[in-house]
Amino acid sequence: MKCKTIAIIGLGLIGGSVLKALQGFEDAVFYGVDNDEAVLRAAKEQGLICDGSLLPDEVTQIADVTFVCLHPDATVEFINNHKFKKNVLVTDVSGVKQAIYAGLNNPEVDFIGGHPMAGKEESGFFASDKALFKNASYLLTPTENNLPEHIELLTRMTAYMGCRETVITTPEEHDRMIAYTSQLMHIVAAALCDNERLDASKDFSAGSLRDCTRVAKLDSSLWTRLFLLNKNDLVRCIDEFSASLQKFRNLIDSEKETELKQFLENCSDRKRRFLA
Amino acid sequence: MKCKTIAIIGLGLIGGSVLKALQGFEDAVFYGVDNDEAVLRAAKEQGLICDGSLLPDEVTQIADVTFVCLHPDATVEFINNHKFKKNVLVTDVSGVKQAIYAGLNNPEVDFIGGHPMAGKEESGFFASDKALFKNASYLLTPTENNLPEHIELLTRMTAYMGCRETVITTPEEHDRMIAYTSQLMHIVAAALCDNERLDASKDFSAGSLRDCTRVAKLDSSLWTRLFLLNKNDLVRCIDEFSASLQKFRNLIDSEKETELKQFLENCSDRKRRFLA
Repeated sequence: MKCKTIAIIGLGLIGGSVLKALQGFEDAVFYGVDNDEAVLRAAKEQGLICDGSLLPDEVTQIADVTFVCLHPDATVEFINNHKFKKNVLVTDVSGVKQAIYAGLNNPEVDFIGGHPMAGKEESGFFASDKALFKNASYLLTPTENNLPEHIELLTRMTAYMGCRETVITTPEEHDRMIAYTSQLMHIVAAALCDNERLDASKDFSAGSLRDCTRVAKLDSSLWTRLFLLNKNDLVRCIDEFSASLQKFRNLIDSEKETELKQFLENCSDRKRRFLA
Repeated sequence: MKCKTIAIIGLGLIGGSVLKALQGFEDAVFYGVDNDEAVLRAAKEQGLICDGSLLPDEVTQIADVTFVCLHPDATVEFINNHKFKKNVLVTDVSGVKQAIYAGLNNPEVDFIGGHPMAGKEESGFFASDKALFKNASYLLTPTENNLPEHIELLTRMTAYMGCRETVITTPEEHDRMIAYTSQLMHIVAAALCDNERLDASKDFSAGSLRDCTRVAKLDSSLWTRLFLLNKNDLVRCIDEFSASLQKFRNLIDSEKETELKQFLENCSDRKRRFLA
């Protein structure tokens, strides 16, 4: 199927980047919804949308495909509380998936969960970038209830956006992996900053402090919700990591040099294999 | 004072970069010592040294300044077991300082500990770069026994190498800070890789996994020694970090949303202040 009208709900960093990256896709026209008039005006002036609106229903009722690019709770609320054309494709970009599916109760739409593996430190429409998804992977969590032509359409879209790969997975597997690859990394970066030595570190640091703590500059409202909405997987990940950390601590404290070197080598080798 | 002859012992990544960055410094001539003949030949062919040697005493006995750019134990052993001109400046580039001072017993030399806050993932002479120290800080740990003109000379050298700043500190403060800014970061990066999920993470990850684990690809022999030579400070740092991590874990597990958001915000704000 071809889609004629694409709606982007929330023109922030991700929504704005989706909008920019999809320009020209199969002759579709674009509509945007945002609660910031200046953003809608800019998107229209840049020729990215044929029209923008502060009133979502004006847009969702004409859209063939809707990208909901809001925080997770707002995503669920938006989809449940607005009218869409019957059986249209609706997708999201949230960092959790089981909680989204659990919250949805709008039987009118054909929802497929999505999560682009891309981001940057800045946020908002004016930081959005048509190249944000270049070489990223894009995760989709369709179920057996989805129309196959919607999965195909969404896959064509993510390819058009420049993604290296579109990965079909389950909400459960998504959340289990993201707890490690993303949420744990954000917890670790933040916890590393919970130390007054950081304030005096400027002259005493090079790349390792900068890189390990890069993502600590985060949106605390968003990440608090992401952590809580994936609590079980994340707590398990933190516990696994704590055990590895304690193993290092005890090998150092007891000066078990051979075992310490071997453990370090194993960790380092796993990273090398990952990079290969 | 001016120095006429500079010796670099060990032309690896750091030694090679020191050699390249110091070219032209106050009309000095350079000698290199390395156990790899191909490296000495390349350094001579590139016009970086007037002569190279596999025999350290040939070089140390004519040098006015010697940079010992070896691993920490080899640094101590080298300085203790070679002949230098009386009271010449000898400096090192090790990532620990108290252990170096504790190991030295060559009263002939005027030793000043040094540690450039710079590095990269590759190692060896052929990865060395005259721009490695650009905008880095360079830590020096002189004592009251050092000749003031040697401290001044070394400060001129680090400035010439492109360092943003030369910081005078004590071996104790150096080790306390480096345990946090560097050693803890390497432990954390390695411990994050001690998880079989890493092997399946390629399609499920973006920047946070890559950055938090960047330094996990490390030289396990070197880092094992650095960790053990700074055991007390490092174990304290790991324990502090573990406490912060457990605080996050428990706030998530008990779903204390307001406190979790506040703690995350505090960590994030500390990072923002650090960047400012």
